[in-house]
Amino acid sequence: MAQTEEKNHKKDMELEKEDLSVEKVFQNQEVPSWRKQLTIRAFVVSFVLSVLFCFIVMKLNLTTGIIPSLNVSAGLLGFFFVNTWTKFLSKSGMLRQPFTRQENTVIQTCVVASSGIAFSGGFGSYLFGMSERVARLSSNRTDFKNPAIGWILGFLFIVSFLGLFSVVPLRKIMIIDFKLTYPSGTATAHLINSFHTPQGAKLAKKQVKVLGKFFTFSFLWGFFQWFYTASDDCGFQAFPSMGLKAYKYKFYFDFSTIYVGVGMICPHIINISLLLGGILSWGLMWPLIENKMGDWYPPGLDENNMHGLEGYKVFIAISMILGDGLYNFFKTLGHTITGLYQQIRDRRQENVLPVADQNSPSGPQQSFDFQRRTQLFLKDQIPTWFAVAGYVSIAIVSVITLPHIFHQLKWYYMLVIYLLAPTLAFCNAYGCGLTDWSLASNYGKLAIFTIGAWAGASHGGVLAGLAACGVMMNVVSTASDLTQDFKTGYLTLASPRSMFVSQIIGTAMGCVISPCVFWVFYKAFDDLGTPKSEYPTPYAILYRNMAILGVEGFSSLPKNCLLLCYVFFGSAILINLIKDLMGQRGWFIPFPMAMAIPFYLGPYFAIDMCVGSLILFIWQKVNKAKADAFGPAVASGLICGDGIWTIPASILALAGIKPPICMKFLSRATNKRVDNLLGS
Amino acid sequence: MAQTEEKNHKKDMELEKEDLSVEKVFQNQEVPSWRKQLTIRAFVVSFVLSVLFCFIVMKLNLTTGIIPSLNVSAGLLGFFFVNTWTKFLSKSGMLRQPFTRQENTVIQTCVVASSGIAFSGGFGSYLFGMSERVARLSSNRTDFKNPAIGWILGFLFIVSFLGLFSVVPLRKIMIIDFKLTYPSGTATAHLINSFHTPQGAKLAKKQVKVLGKFFTFSFLWGFFQWFYTASDDCGFQAFPSMGLKAYKYKFYFDFSTIYVGVGMICPHIINISLLLGGILSWGLMWPLIENKMGDWYPPGLDENNMHGLEGYKVFIAISMILGDGLYNFFKTLGHTITGLYQQIRDRRQENVLPVADQNSPSGPQQSFDFQRRTQLFLKDQIPTWFAVAGYVSIAIVSVITLPHIFHQLKWYYMLVIYLLAPTLAFCNAYGCGLTDWSLASNYGKLAIFTIGAWAGASHGGVLAGLAACGVMMNVVSTASDLTQDFKTGYLTLASPRSMFVSQIIGTAMGCVISPCVFWVFYKAFDDLGTPKSEYPTPYAILYRNMAILGVEGFSSLPKNCLLLCYVFFGSAILINLIKDLMGQRGWFIPFPMAMAIPFYLGPYFAIDMCVGSLILFIWQKVNKAKADAFGPAVASGLICGDGIWTIPASILALAGIKPPICMKFLSRATNKRVDNLLGS
Repeated sequence: MAQTEEKNHKKDMELEKEDLSVEKVFQNQEVPSWRKQLTIRAFVVSFVLSVLFCFIVMKLNLTTGIIPSLNVSAGLLGFFFVNTWTKFLSKSGMLRQPFTRQENTVIQTCVVASSGIAFSGGFGSYLFGMSERVARLSSNRTDFKNPAIGWILGFLFIVSFLGLFSVVPLRKIMIIDFKLTYPSGTATAHLINSFHTPQGAKLAKKQVKVLGKFFTFSFLWGFFQWFYTASDDCGFQAFPSMGLKAYKYKFYFDFSTIYVGVGMICPHIINISLLLGGILSWGLMWPLIENKMGDWYPPGLDENNMHGLEGYKVFIAISMILGDGLYNFFKTLGHTITGLYQQIRDRRQENVLPVADQNSPSGPQQSFDFQRRTQLFLKDQIPTWFAVAGYVSIAIVSVITLPHIFHQLKWYYMLVIYLLAPTLAFCNAYGCGLTDWSLASNYGKLAIFTIGAWAGASHGGVLAGLAACGVMMNVVSTASDLTQDFKTGYLTLASPRSMFVSQIIGTAMGCVISPCVFWVFYKAFDDLGTPKSEYPTPYAILYRNMAILGVEGFSSLPKNCLLLCYVFFGSAILINLIKDLMGQRGWFIPFPMAMAIPFYLGPYFAIDMCVGSLILFIWQKVNKAKADAFGPAVASGLICGDGIWTIPASILALAGIKPPICMKFLSRATNKRVDNLLGS
Repeated sequence: MAQTEEKNHKKDMELEKEDLSVEKVFQNQEVPSWRKQLTIRAFVVSFVLSVLFCFIVMKLNLTTGIIPSLNVSAGLLGFFFVNTWTKFLSKSGMLRQPFTRQENTVIQTCVVASSGIAFSGGFGSYLFGMSERVARLSSNRTDFKNPAIGWILGFLFIVSFLGLFSVVPLRKIMIIDFKLTYPSGTATAHLINSFHTPQGAKLAKKQVKVLGKFFTFSFLWGFFQWFYTASDDCGFQAFPSMGLKAYKYKFYFDFSTIYVGVGMICPHIINISLLLGGILSWGLMWPLIENKMGDWYPPGLDENNMHGLEGYKVFIAISMILGDGLYNFFKTLGHTITGLYQQIRDRRQENVLPVADQNSPSGPQQSFDFQRRTQLFLKDQIPTWFAVAGYVSIAIVSVITLPHIFHQLKWYYMLVIYLLAPTLAFCNAYGCGLTDWSLASNYGKLAIFTIGAWAGASHGGVLAGLAACGVMMNVVSTASDLTQDFKTGYLTLASPRSMFVSQIIGTAMGCVISPCVFWVFYKAFDDLGTPKSEYPTPYAILYRNMAILGVEGFSSLPKNCLLLCYVFFGSAILINLIKDLMGQRGWFIPFPMAMAIPFYLGPYFAIDMCVGSLILFIWQKVNKAKADAFGPAVASGLICGDGIWTIPASILALAGIKPPICMKFLSRATNKRVDNLLGS
């Protein structure tokens, strides 16, 4: 689910306008030692931002599972906070250390690490997929493990640090020897570098101002909406802006600024893919399949019954996601292997001479930047024995303790996973460096099917599969994140040691913050995880059904569903193939992965996102320069404001304070009945 | 009700930036003969605009009775239509006559005359006040005359032309000898003059573009709102944006762009007066009086019963309106008499020498403009015998026929009215020339009380009073309108003859269009005239109750109501007095007339208007030049768009097509009951 579920950084690339030599600009600035890069204020700011982004990521996780890149927001807000802090201190004469770009990178790394846990912790996917609430929506209702803050905390601490240790020894190979691109990491580094030039700081301040405006608007709008949401199906989120018939099939604009913002960050084609998928499924297929009720599936079933229409929605979506995932898995694996092969061959031939980075202008400046960066990157070493010892000891703890959390997960499954994990982590980190796509969730799905099938249905294969998925995803995802951060650190002269420590601290923060934030949502919103809820957690249901599919096979599918699944599995691969063959000319071909999400959820959030896309598109037509400079800030403001509103919203919900008014939408006929009731 | 009910032109004044000599700029342009000023295209455009403005004025009449100056919109749209027309024709080579400012003045005059009838026809006041529907809301339920298109047409044709003939002989005295200012007429003339300079035309085109944008937005917004208004208390017009409790006391923003636009045109202090009045009445007094239920008035009364709370609302509003009206009547009369006295004395002293216009810079340019304008104004004469003959013959027809329409209106009442009318018409035209305030409705109220009392309760005095009010208002209002137009014509070199003919044609158009438009509303909206309706026609109820008060005295008032009425009558006079004594320094003192309207209607439209005021205020703070240039265009766009939307809206209503959805606002408790009903 690389384009959507995971982070995508295409936009950041636009900010990457390489000066001839970056490091010459910063030549007069002393680079602080790695210990001095790790300031207390950096971690205080990181903590604040981590909580902020955890709420945002959690809301996105639990509503649609589409999480855009929040790097720009994190970068901007980090800059804003520390800048205000240092200004304030320098005025009061208490400033001992100026704000450096290395420190900025440390904050960025820490925040990305901790909010990464909110995603890879699986609160919207595998972890919540184990719960009884989701189990009741699937065909396997007996195997469940309800979330409890205790075991989640333990689980995350056990599995989240492995990935970090697994790639530490390989950092020099990937960053300096292979010179992998890591588009997101590079873009973030350029952003941070630009913030710390005088001109860049000016623009950054303007961007922060714009962000602040839209943040306030978005927050107040969320607040205003709240008053009219006395129950489900009330308020702006249930506004049938295209009519009641369209609303029934989830075609409406739900006025959520967060997805308008997400739409502004995601590339246009992603938004259009989502909408296309929505139209294809809810506009065409589901109404048609509904007509077959009584023929294809028995009438009178519960709405969420997997043997009815719901089954088609879930399994067709899964097959498309799997088709796309499989294609990209093998594609990236192919790239990785050929890339590796070439690297090794080239290195053997050229041996000593540094190879010119393909993405940078060659010349004396390049080599100055290269030399300075390499020098600083290699200065602070992390001993390999430390990394290996770390990995092995955590793995041992993990193999012993995890089976106590999940009885279905035998210790030898874990052993196999941990033997394979470093290789997979390297593959993912390498692939991500080449293509910017982290395939963590695909590795997770691999684990679901293999471990699930190994355990078997009678031994709780569903839960074993989901748990294995969690282990795998955490290892693989943190590995690629850390390598990205090494690249960012390399380009901003931040020490690998400070990156590593920051990532460790960030991960630890994430392991604590994420479960707490999830717990707030879980306790505040009773209907979380049910399809009609404000928080339908679509991926929890999809992941659980994948696990069931892996364990029980196709027996549970309704009539003709398997055929449709094959068709969509095949089309996903075919569409990807055509897209790749056409290259640049195939820009208009949709992404099957993005198309699949509205299959289950409905197109409403795709409409929000297309509105965001449209706004950006028009803005770019009117004033391209301004749109490019401030578009990400507007989007970040919209996302953060609505995301933060979930904090007071959940506090209100926890305190039992309910909105006073219901804005209800009734058909004229129903309205008459209601008026009669109220009149009498 | 000069500030609000009638036209107010303060804003136009801002556009009045006198060049040193206007006529030297136009020196090379030939002035067409008066016959050539009256082109067919001018009247086609006038007709289209008349229909447009009739709908707008009628909607305003029937919703709140607050009608802002539409002169700028009429001027802009007239310019736009004829300009497009001539451009189109000149491209196709068929243009025989270029578009002149005289022609523009003719259109302006015709549109103002015809939309003036929509106001002075009393569809929102005396005329609809006679209907059975309004009678049922008053304490006198027996005297009524339901509207029917036949008698309304006849009535309007009989009474609307008299005013024109009554002032024609006096035009030279008022325009050239007395040099009265006529601020609106002067402002309109400057606007039209500016349109026909190259620079002005460019600005006008930009303004038209802005107007068009907001017109479209406002129209589409009206259309969108429609879908959610399946019944009363549905849709955006019932949006409790400040909570349900505030909504109960009519404190809410009703999302109607027309009143936001009106608020942008009305001076800030008017909007604030309205809001103050609303807070004073619905926020304070009515809740307090409600607590006295059972003491001051019997409990369990029908909501619209005049012996209950409704009585307080209506009669306190009336007393405030009457207090303000009386004060301004005598003030303007005083001005008129002292002004006249001074004029006559000055003329006797200076005899031949032309007096320098106080409002224009003196010097050779002034005298060039003055000479050229005077020369052309005096060229085309309208013989006095023609005017007198016209007046007398129409008066005779009127005296004979009107008693056939209203049996309660004896022929000798009519005779007395028509003997007095020319004097009153002159007074109003003169006062309007001095102060820009037409006091037509005050003269109408005078007629209600005098003729009503003369006829007496047993002889249908209520109806007689209302009918006499209509006659008086029409005569007096058209007289001041025509004199304004003579001033405009004088300043744009349009012939008095073409002005007169245009006014006659415009009035005739108005006499046909207004009743038809009213009929559309009357038939389309069944609940028109009832307090809870979208069209509550507040003045119909207020006027009828004034008539009842005049005929029956204070007997029908509930307890303590008379005392409150005295207090508010007195305060209205006092506030006006203080305002006048403080002069410029009293800018913050509210207008009692404006405060009185929300007494009956509630403050919701005042909130709309204050939003408009606020938008303009902020805009002026951010960019004063732009706000001044385009504010009126934005306001006109908002007003016209929403006004025009009433055409399709009433067509839909007439065709029996009802909106499909009800957007309902329920309290949480009620919502539960409704959910139970719908669930079962």
